[in-house]
Amino acid sequence: MKIALAQLNYHIGNFESNTAKIIDAIKKARENGADLVVFAELCVGGYPARDFLEFKEFISLCNQEADAIAAVCQDIACIIGIPTVNNQPEGKDLNNSAYFINNGKVEAIVSKALLPNYDVFDEYRYFEPCTQFNCIDFKGHRIALTICEDLWNTIENPLYITRPMDELIKQQPDVMINIAASPFTYSHDEERIAILSDNAKRYNLPLFYVNQVGAQTELIFDGGSLVFDNNGAIIDEMPYFEESIGYYTLQNDAKIVPQHTPTLKTTRASDIEQIHNGLLLGIRDYFYKSGFKQATLGLSGGIDSAVVCALAAEALGAENVMAILLPSKFSSDHSLKDAMDLVQNLGCRHEVIAIKEVTDAFEQALSPQFKNLPFNIAEENIQARSRAVLLMAMCNKFGYILLNTSNKSEAAVGYGTLYGDMCGGISVIGDVYKTQVFELAKYINRDREIIPVNTIVKPPSAELRPGQKDTDSLPDYDILDKILKEYVENRCSSGEIIQMGYDETTVRKVIKLVNTAEHKRYQTPPILRVSPKAFGVGRRMPIVGKYLS
Amino acid sequence: MKIALAQLNYHIGNFESNTAKIIDAIKKARENGADLVVFAELCVGGYPARDFLEFKEFISLCNQEADAIAAVCQDIACIIGIPTVNNQPEGKDLNNSAYFINNGKVEAIVSKALLPNYDVFDEYRYFEPCTQFNCIDFKGHRIALTICEDLWNTIENPLYITRPMDELIKQQPDVMINIAASPFTYSHDEERIAILSDNAKRYNLPLFYVNQVGAQTELIFDGGSLVFDNNGAIIDEMPYFEESIGYYTLQNDAKIVPQHTPTLKTTRASDIEQIHNGLLLGIRDYFYKSGFKQATLGLSGGIDSAVVCALAAEALGAENVMAILLPSKFSSDHSLKDAMDLVQNLGCRHEVIAIKEVTDAFEQALSPQFKNLPFNIAEENIQARSRAVLLMAMCNKFGYILLNTSNKSEAAVGYGTLYGDMCGGISVIGDVYKTQVFELAKYINRDREIIPVNTIVKPPSAELRPGQKDTDSLPDYDILDKILKEYVENRCSSGEIIQMGYDETTVRKVIKLVNTAEHKRYQTPPILRVSPKAFGVGRRMPIVGKYLS
Repeated sequence: MKIALAQLNYHIGNFESNTAKIIDAIKKARENGADLVVFAELCVGGYPARDFLEFKEFISLCNQEADAIAAVCQDIACIIGIPTVNNQPEGKDLNNSAYFINNGKVEAIVSKALLPNYDVFDEYRYFEPCTQFNCIDFKGHRIALTICEDLWNTIENPLYITRPMDELIKQQPDVMINIAASPFTYSHDEERIAILSDNAKRYNLPLFYVNQVGAQTELIFDGGSLVFDNNGAIIDEMPYFEESIGYYTLQNDAKIVPQHTPTLKTTRASDIEQIHNGLLLGIRDYFYKSGFKQATLGLSGGIDSAVVCALAAEALGAENVMAILLPSKFSSDHSLKDAMDLVQNLGCRHEVIAIKEVTDAFEQALSPQFKNLPFNIAEENIQARSRAVLLMAMCNKFGYILLNTSNKSEAAVGYGTLYGDMCGGISVIGDVYKTQVFELAKYINRDREIIPVNTIVKPPSAELRPGQKDTDSLPDYDILDKILKEYVENRCSSGEIIQMGYDETTVRKVIKLVNTAEHKRYQTPPILRVSPKAFGVGRRMPIVGKYLS
Repeated sequence: MKIALAQLNYHIGNFESNTAKIIDAIKKARENGADLVVFAELCVGGYPARDFLEFKEFISLCNQEADAIAAVCQDIACIIGIPTVNNQPEGKDLNNSAYFINNGKVEAIVSKALLPNYDVFDEYRYFEPCTQFNCIDFKGHRIALTICEDLWNTIENPLYITRPMDELIKQQPDVMINIAASPFTYSHDEERIAILSDNAKRYNLPLFYVNQVGAQTELIFDGGSLVFDNNGAIIDEMPYFEESIGYYTLQNDAKIVPQHTPTLKTTRASDIEQIHNGLLLGIRDYFYKSGFKQATLGLSGGIDSAVVCALAAEALGAENVMAILLPSKFSSDHSLKDAMDLVQNLGCRHEVIAIKEVTDAFEQALSPQFKNLPFNIAEENIQARSRAVLLMAMCNKFGYILLNTSNKSEAAVGYGTLYGDMCGGISVIGDVYKTQVFELAKYINRDREIIPVNTIVKPPSAELRPGQKDTDSLPDYDILDKILKEYVENRCSSGEIIQMGYDETTVRKVIKLVNTAEHKRYQTPPILRVSPKAFGVGRRMPIVGKYLS
C-alpha cells in the first residue's frame, strides 16, 4: 500500500480554498500512484474553528465539502478530518471525526476519544468523546486510525482514563495512522517525536502521523509530519513550517519505504531558529489570511521594535513594511540613528513624526486639572498613547496593520502602556522573553548586520523620562526571565521560587507585577504563541481576584 | 433537621475574607439552632478561580482553609464547596467537590459529575468528573448532595450521558441538596426554577438549592437560592443580588417549615429591572474587590454614557464618580447641556476638557503624511482616541478607573474606535442592546428625571463629523438588535435570519459588520454579562477566519 501524507496549510472557514487544496492533493497523490492520501485533523473547516462550530450552517457546509471531496476519490482513498453531528441522543452536539473515503463515498467514520481541554485547547466545549473503536480494512491492511490527542495519554502522566489504542490493538491492526492539529512550541517537536515513537514501540506497529502547517491567528502549526517503523525508529520527518506531501510504501512485512530519500536530522533546530521560523509563518499567515499586505510599527531604536521590523520585512517583504519613527524630547540621539540604520539595512519605507507638539497639547489641555502636580506615570503614558494615536491614524489612512512590539518579559510585568505601546493587530514577540529577543537579534544578524549592533548592546530603555533605564524598575532580564518562567510557565509559587535560590524581595516584586498587569494583558492583541505557556487564550486568570504571593 | 442556606458573596483567591464569612455564618447558624449550614459551590477559593486552580499552592491553601472551617464545626455540620486533588491515578488533577463537615472533621466528600464546558464555563479544563455516588446520612435523614450542573441534564436537551440523581435515588435519600455557582442572566431565574422544580418532582424529594451572590469581574451571580417541596412547589426564594441566610426545618414527613414568612413572588422582576440590579452589583464588586473607589467616564450627552454614569453613581455613590465632558467642534450645543443636566441631577463631580487643540496638533503632526487626503475614518478616530488619552491621563493622575460606555449593539457591529471609546477597566453596558439601554434609561427615571429627557429622545449620534447620525451607517436599532440577537445569541445563519422576514441586504450588512469587528472586541475590557450570550469569555470566535454569510 502506498500512502501519501499531505501536510497542508488550511484557513479556518475558508471552504473554497481548503477543499481546493485537498482535492488538488488527492489528484497529485493519485498521479503519483498512491492508494491512500491522509490529511490533517479537522482539515475541512480548519482548526481551531472555535465557536464557528456552534453554527449549524458551519457543520452542514463541512459536510457539503466532504461530498465534493468524496466525488473525486476514485481509484484512491483518503482520510480527512471533519466535525460531525453526534448521532447519540445524549451528550454534546458534535464529534471530532475522521472520514475514510473510498470509491467516492465515506466508508468509515472514526471519532476522537481523548479531547484536549487545557492550555489553548477547548475541545470539550464542542465535542462528545468517542467510546467505540473500530479498525479500517483497506488493501489487505488493517488500519488503527486515531486523531491527535488519542495517542497522547502518556504512561507517566495519564491525563485521561482511557487509551484508544488499547482497544484498537485487540482487533490486530498492522498499521497506525494519526491525523493531528498539534500547535508549535519551541520544545514541542522533541516531545512529539518521543510520544509517537513510544506508541509505535508499545503497540509494535508502524505509525504515520500527519500534522497541519500554518498559523491560525495566534496559533502556529509547524507541520513536521512523521513516519515511524514498528520499533519506534523515525523513517521520515517532513519539513517544518511549510506545505509538503510525502509518499511511503507500506510493505506487507511492515517495512516502510519512502519514495524520496529522507534527510533525517541528526541535531534539532535550536529554540531560537524554531522561534524565528515560527514567527515568520505567524506574521505571513496573519496578513495573508486576513487579506492585508502592509504592516507598520513604531520603530524606537530599541531592540524589540528592531527585531519585529526585521521579522516583518522577512515575512512580508521590506516593501510592505512602513517603519514609523516617533521621537520625543526624551529620545536619545542614538535612538533615531539606530532606527535609521535598521531602516537602511532592511530597505523598508519609513516616516518620522515628532510627538512633542502633540504631547504639549495634551499637557496644555490637562493643565487646569493637573495644575502643578509633578510629572509621573500620567505624562509618561501620554507619550506612549500619543504614539499609538499617530500609528493608528496612519493605519486608518493607508490601510496598514499595526504590529505590536511588546516582548513577553514586558507583557508579564506590565512594563508597557495600555492603549499605547500595547496596541496592535498582532503581537509578534509577546511570547518571546527579552533575553530571547537578544538571541533572536543575533540570529537575524547571523549572515550580516541587519539589526545595528548598537541596538543590541545598549541598555534597554523605554525613554519616557530623562535617562530612564529598564533596570531602574525591573531586575536584570536574565534574572527576571527565569523567575517569570517559573511563575508563568511552571506555575510555581513565590515560596517555591525563593527556595530555588532567587532573592525573596525580587521574587515577590516580580510576581506582584505580573498579577497586577492581568487587566492590561486582557486588552492586548493576540500573541503569536511559541512557548508552552503564552499569554492569551492559553492562560486564563481572574482579573478581579486576590492573587497569592 | 434545621437547615441554614448561606448565600454569600465570595472573592476569588481572598481566603481570609471568604473563610471569615463562612465561619461567621456557621456561628450565626449555630446560634439560630441550625443542625446544618450549606454554602455555595467552590466557596473556598471562589468561583470561577480559572487558572488559579493550576497552582498547587492555591489548592493546598483551599484545604488549609477547610481545616480552619472544620475546626469551628462543633454542634453543627456544614457543607462547603472546594477543589480537591483527584486521588485516581488517571485523569485530570482535580475534582470539583463538596465537603460534608461534622464534629470538626470532613465526614464525606462528594464530587461533581456533570462539568459545564460551554459558554463561560471551562470546568473540564481543571476537573475530572466524578463517577461514584453516595448519599450522606445525618440526623435521621439521607441527603442526596449534588453540585450545580449535576441537576441540569434536562430530559429535553440532555447535554451529558449520565444523571447523578438517577444513581443517588437508588440509595433512597429523603432530601436533595444542591450547591451552585450559577451566573445571572436576565432569563436565568425562570429557567433555574423550572429545572430545579422538575428535579424535585421527578425524584419526589424536597430540594434545597444554594447559589452564590456577587460579581467576579464580568460574571454576576444573583443568589436567589431556592427551596422546593417534593411536589416541586417553591417553598422559598431567597433575595436576589444580596447576601442572605435562610433557615428551614425539614420534618420527618418531608414537609419544610421556613423560620421566616417567605414572600413568594407572584410576578418575576422585569428583564430591565434585573439588568439594572445586576449591573449595580457588577460595578460595585468590580471596584470593591479590586480595591478602587473612584470611577470616571467620558460624558457625551448621549444616552449610553448617561446611563453608565447614573448606574455608577447609584452603585458607588455620586461622590465617587467624576464625569468628564470632552467636547469637539462636532459636538452639538445640546450635548454639553444634556451632559451638564445629568451631572446636576446626579450630583457627581465633573470636568470639561476641550479636545480641539489636541486633535489639531495630531492633524498638524500628520500633515506631511496625510497631505490633502480627504477627512475620513482616520480623523474621526483621532477624536475618539484623543478623548481616551485624556481620560486615561486623568485615571493615571488621580487613581480613577475608567468605565467603558459601549453598548452591545455598537460592540457587535464595531461602531466604536479601538483604543478610543472602546477603552476602560470594565464595560458596564456592553451586554445591553441599544434598545435595552433606552428602557434602562426610562427605568432609571422611574421616580424622577435623572437622565435628561432630551438625552433619551434625540437621535443617537457619535458626533465625529458634522450632522452625523447612527442611522447614517446602521439600520434602526429596533431592527438591528433583533438581527443581532438571532446571529449572536441564537447562532442563526444569514439565510435563516432572512427567512424570518428580515431584509436580505440589511441582514448581510449587519452580519458582515459583526464578523469584521471580531479583532476589535478581542481587545476590549471585560463586559458585565447579563444575557445568555455576552461578548467576551463566553463567545470565542476565530479572528483570522473566513466568516460565513
